[in-house]
Amino acid sequence: MNKNLLSIMAQTITPYQWAKNVGQEVLRFDTNTLPSPPPCVNKFLKDLINNCPINEYGDPSYVKLKKLISKYENTPEDTITVTNSGDEALDIIGKAFLNNGDYFLIQPPTYEIFKSQCEINRGKVIEVPLLKENFKSDIKNVIKVLKNTPVKITFVCNPNNPTGSITKLEEIELILKNTSGIVLVDEAYREFYGVSSVPLLSKYNNLVILRSFSKFGAMAGARVGYLLANKKLSQVFNAIRFPLGVSYFSCKLAEKLLEEDQNWIKDQTKMIKKERERLFQSIKKLGFFVYPSQANFILVNFGKKASDICEKLKENNILVRDRSNKKYLEGCVRITIRNQKQNNILVNSLKNIMNTKYDGLIFDMDGVLIDVSQSYREAIRQTASYFLKRNVQMSEVDQIKNMSGMNNDWEATYALINDSTISYESVKKYFQKKYLTGLINKEKLLISKKDLQRLKNKYKNLGIATGRPKKEAEYVIKNNKLEKIFDCIIALEDVTKSKPAPDSLLAVIKKLKLKRTVYIGDSPSDFLAAKLAKIPYINVDKTKTILQVINYLL
Amino acid sequence: MNKNLLSIMAQTITPYQWAKNVGQEVLRFDTNTLPSPPPCVNKFLKDLINNCPINEYGDPSYVKLKKLISKYENTPEDTITVTNSGDEALDIIGKAFLNNGDYFLIQPPTYEIFKSQCEINRGKVIEVPLLKENFKSDIKNVIKVLKNTPVKITFVCNPNNPTGSITKLEEIELILKNTSGIVLVDEAYREFYGVSSVPLLSKYNNLVILRSFSKFGAMAGARVGYLLANKKLSQVFNAIRFPLGVSYFSCKLAEKLLEEDQNWIKDQTKMIKKERERLFQSIKKLGFFVYPSQANFILVNFGKKASDICEKLKENNILVRDRSNKKYLEGCVRITIRNQKQNNILVNSLKNIMNTKYDGLIFDMDGVLIDVSQSYREAIRQTASYFLKRNVQMSEVDQIKNMSGMNNDWEATYALINDSTISYESVKKYFQKKYLTGLINKEKLLISKKDLQRLKNKYKNLGIATGRPKKEAEYVIKNNKLEKIFDCIIALEDVTKSKPAPDSLLAVIKKLKLKRTVYIGDSPSDFLAAKLAKIPYINVDKTKTILQVINYLL
Repeated sequence: MNKNLLSIMAQTITPYQWAKNVGQEVLRFDTNTLPSPPPCVNKFLKDLINNCPINEYGDPSYVKLKKLISKYENTPEDTITVTNSGDEALDIIGKAFLNNGDYFLIQPPTYEIFKSQCEINRGKVIEVPLLKENFKSDIKNVIKVLKNTPVKITFVCNPNNPTGSITKLEEIELILKNTSGIVLVDEAYREFYGVSSVPLLSKYNNLVILRSFSKFGAMAGARVGYLLANKKLSQVFNAIRFPLGVSYFSCKLAEKLLEEDQNWIKDQTKMIKKERERLFQSIKKLGFFVYPSQANFILVNFGKKASDICEKLKENNILVRDRSNKKYLEGCVRITIRNQKQNNILVNSLKNIMNTKYDGLIFDMDGVLIDVSQSYREAIRQTASYFLKRNVQMSEVDQIKNMSGMNNDWEATYALINDSTISYESVKKYFQKKYLTGLINKEKLLISKKDLQRLKNKYKNLGIATGRPKKEAEYVIKNNKLEKIFDCIIALEDVTKSKPAPDSLLAVIKKLKLKRTVYIGDSPSDFLAAKLAKIPYINVDKTKTILQVINYLL
Repeated sequence: MNKNLLSIMAQTITPYQWAKNVGQEVLRFDTNTLPSPPPCVNKFLKDLINNCPINEYGDPSYVKLKKLISKYENTPEDTITVTNSGDEALDIIGKAFLNNGDYFLIQPPTYEIFKSQCEINRGKVIEVPLLKENFKSDIKNVIKVLKNTPVKITFVCNPNNPTGSITKLEEIELILKNTSGIVLVDEAYREFYGVSSVPLLSKYNNLVILRSFSKFGAMAGARVGYLLANKKLSQVFNAIRFPLGVSYFSCKLAEKLLEEDQNWIKDQTKMIKKERERLFQSIKKLGFFVYPSQANFILVNFGKKASDICEKLKENNILVRDRSNKKYLEGCVRITIRNQKQNNILVNSLKNIMNTKYDGLIFDMDGVLIDVSQSYREAIRQTASYFLKRNVQMSEVDQIKNMSGMNNDWEATYALINDSTISYESVKKYFQKKYLTGLINKEKLLISKKDLQRLKNKYKNLGIATGRPKKEAEYVIKNNKLEKIFDCIIALEDVTKSKPAPDSLLAVIKKLKLKRTVYIGDSPSDFLAAKLAKIPYINVDKTKTILQVINYLL
């Protein structure tokens, strides 16, 4: 099967990594759902017992549901297209308007499915980012683009996900007036804002509104959405939509919700708005910037600590939506508003994470405190060159060191020489001479003395747990005048078992009487040692450099 | 809003007329569904009471459902794409393979959504019809087309809907080997056949199998389907599919079905197969051709009576799928196999419809028995020409006759002459002379004497209820030597009230002592007279000519 078999679109689509399903013990602040299902659910289920014609097809015209939506939205039934949630609705929009290569305009950061569904339908994206300072629509630029480019669909998410910011009706009208295409206003979060563009429907033929029962109706699992547009467009949408995209269960539940739970919806909306304000103030008090929101979530700028905070919340069985590595959203985390009790759990968890102060830090030495690339490795190279009587390349050294079981540098050198007529002792002796009489002085600190002093000021007790011989460890400390920084150094000779045994770490903990400490290392054996010593561990590597670790700790 | 705003596809799509929802009193033999929901439904509903997290999103990876499908199908989990029924599955296929204008091949008559979903995704159809004699695949022609045309998707519906015919695995392999594209085998009805192409999956990279829980799982209302294909294709399908197209309810029910009801599925399949044979024989006995079927429906050729039979079944609250006006399916009706009791109701209803024998027929004369276009109208034309002293055109006659209130030809002629100096009586006299002394002989029978004799043989009593003067009615009968055919003629003078009053019909009924008769007419006043006389009515017009009526009655 050749790759060209696939459509051009399918050849470039990225396989999606679905979120893992989490247990019910996890508090979800990551999905913008309401904290509980609508009360009508139980009645709905009971009514179906012994009376559930699921073997038959449901009503493909959704006659009853459309009547109820028509009443709820105050717009005629023939302006409604019922869909399998917002996903199918957006797919219909893509199919109805986009020819291959037609433009659609999004205002990032915004709901990501706008882009993916339109690209699946062969559209070409134009991005006009929201204003950086407040995530408001950059209307001037939007209009400018619309005037110069034949844009088929302009997306307005109102309120916007994930920022919670809104676009005023006057601005939406401006866009409607200045485009030759349609404007898709996504009002999935409308109820938490209170303003709708439905009254504009009768005025603008090019307005399409996207709605979903997922959020306001507390029915995310049921997958029911709908489009509102003029009668002619609605006819086209209905011709394109799946013959029966909504399950019998979901259709009936949506009907029951609109029949029985409209007061509950109002109460929930009120509760969410109240909690939104409370959560806004609580997180602000913790010292973070919170964006004003008109949705059932808030966007918080946790800065550089964002991912760490999300990780720690996860350890506490709390999920939030970490967007901190996304373009336009650096440092930002989206947090769903849930009920009072659940929001309190979140805030308390955050407080605990903020207040977690270690009573001391334990460092590995090589690769964490000290850069040994110019010392030990160079000693290997020079020793091997001497015995092999040729100029050994650093790449040869790297190669042997990267082999498993080559942690001990003397053994690595001996293996590199690979000559049984030469004694191990003579190699070790030459190596030590080279290292101790010169190369050791080439070792540089990876953390500045100034930063180390700041860490000392904050955490009081700093210790070292290293596999170096005592002399070599102490030499570096003296050489860099760090005696007053480190209160304790446990080296090779101080314990009977080296890392990954926890002995050296436990020795530091005992000596400094630490109760809440953390080990900072750079290798799997460091990680294992911390685990066995039952203390937290921070790894230094390419994804989290020593500078980032210091930033985090300070 | 200009029309070009829509995509080229959307500009030409036909607005769909959704089937009307029917009440629960209607027996549905039109949807190929199983007669009852799976037994696990009630347990499923009870389990959800007080434990229905419909406010949250379900598992977008369908982990559990995929495990169960994997076991049921005996194919790895990474070959499965769970979809919102077959509709989304076919949409994914369209998106995954079709660029604008790419070819797909269908073998009509077959499942119609293949074509519509591929056309929505901008594909171009190639049709290789099934063989006329047995609705088997025209493999030679399919292969020929595949060799000459770059077809992206070849559809095989196995068993085929609506014919119930099958394509052998060897034939499917032949297609797989001879195409540069993929082959989509729709196995929605597999269980009722018993043969699957799943074992071919590991052998052919270009095989994709479509499955649905709708039929075998008695879950049509739940909208759950899946695609089976090699791992790479499945990755693409999963990237294209909706993030969460299946509702929480439907996903859970599908899981429960596979966990608890597999034996029930086997029993149902067995029952359907047994009933299929029984229904096949019963309808065959009624004298109709039934196509052999490996699905849970049969296709019956009712010939010219198809639509009438469907109509009459509907009057008995039985719906079947009338395909008799579709290309390739002339005269054919698709009937779902339901349970024994329901199938018996259907067969008995059919028997009743077949055995409905009238104990007499009542005919209108003009336009039904007799072609009057060369007599009365010509008499009008000649009379008017005489008085107006010019050659009156037939178009003028038609114009006056088409005006409301111009039933009486003497009055019509007088109106056409439109001259108060001329007396009505003189016009009438001239008209009668022309008609009775010549034109009356130009009147031809619309039904051959031979057919009338056959009707007489079958129904025994034939009567006429006409608005003609007695003499003129009797003249035609004598002239055509039909005295022995018709037992009773009620004419203008025989009743005080003409049609649309029922008097003339009631007079025939009384005279012939009819208990179950029918009136055959050609005008609204005929229809009304039959209605008032409380007897059935057959209208002769362009959509049902007199020849069709005779065919039906014989």
